[in-house]
Amino acid sequence: MAGPSSLTIFFFSLLFFSAVSEASKCSLKGLPLVRNISELPQNNYGRAGLAHTTVAGSLLHGLKEAEVWLQTFAPGSGTPIHRHSCEEVFVVLKGSGTLYLAPSSHEKFPGKPQEFSIFANSTFHIPVNDAHQVRNTNEHEDLQVLVTISRPPVKVFIYEDWFMPHTAAKLKYPYFWDEECLEVESPPKDEL
Amino acid sequence: MAGPSSLTIFFFSLLFFSAVSEASKCSLKGLPLVRNISELPQNNYGRAGLAHTTVAGSLLHGLKEAEVWLQTFAPGSGTPIHRHSCEEVFVVLKGSGTLYLAPSSHEKFPGKPQEFSIFANSTFHIPVNDAHQVRNTNEHEDLQVLVTISRPPVKVFIYEDWFMPHTAAKLKYPYFWDEECLEVESPPKDEL
Repeated sequence: MAGPSSLTIFFFSLLFFSAVSEASKCSLKGLPLVRNISELPQNNYGRAGLAHTTVAGSLLHGLKEAEVWLQTFAPGSGTPIHRHSCEEVFVVLKGSGTLYLAPSSHEKFPGKPQEFSIFANSTFHIPVNDAHQVRNTNEHEDLQVLVTISRPPVKVFIYEDWFMPHTAAKLKYPYFWDEECLEVESPPKDEL
Repeated sequence: MAGPSSLTIFFFSLLFFSAVSEASKCSLKGLPLVRNISELPQNNYGRAGLAHTTVAGSLLHGLKEAEVWLQTFAPGSGTPIHRHSCEEVFVVLKGSGTLYLAPSSHEKFPGKPQEFSIFANSTFHIPVNDAHQVRNTNEHEDLQVLVTISRPPVKVFIYEDWFMPHTAAKLKYPYFWDEECLEVESPPKDEL
């Protein structure tokens, strides 16, 4: 009996490697236990000035209770104005910037935010469901933060401005970096 | 009527400042929202070679779902052999060392651990309830890690060696850095 042709072997190899790469994109399979953060996937997910890496993730690595991100913001870039019901802790690794936090988030709209300077080696956490925004307001340097959130994957309500009513804020779920690995039919209820 | 003596003023000032310092040691009161990590309390909690800082804590800062620690291990030092039912994510900031992780933790005792090299800019997480130990096995440099745990405060079972039965492991709750702020009458059940 004749053996399989080179073309058949090539075809099955392609299938095999595409299956492996698919598996490791959205699961721990094939990943080493200790991972070099510089070698993890990094993307801007369509947001100018952002470099996001999921260091330890719910969908990527099977975590259920906490998730860790590494994010770098180029000068002038930042997060949208948003809120979420999970806890969030920031550790600033490099650069500096501004945290905008709405003190009246539990009224009908976030309202004019308070501004806080953030700097390398500083930490802060976001009170649950407070609308906030982190921006790199230092035009000379990147801002790099390590972020911990609880109860992943994150469900985010996004505001166009600080005076948009909570009822008009847009639910983004799955969030940008969760889209590849999370398919949802109907988004969860998560009201203020 | 004569005014209060200097001594009385001094005495009441002492009382006032001791009350303020007591309040801020175990709560957010009096703490700024953005905190310089270098200025946060650091202690070895009786463990040689350790410098521990609770960056964002359950008892110190009111977090309920996640907690972040900064820990520095001098050469030769490390964590005890231990396990816990919460999730734990490490990010290595500086230095290098070894992660020991028992692959058979769900048998009667942890068993001989596997060894993994950890290095600056690496990340790893500990499977729930797996016995593990992190040690600075690099004699030339400190090992510094940022640690996220879920469901604080942490409840830890400590082993004297890898072959101690789970039933003999000693529950340490509250954990070293939670002792000042957490008073418990009977420890919680948290079995493997």
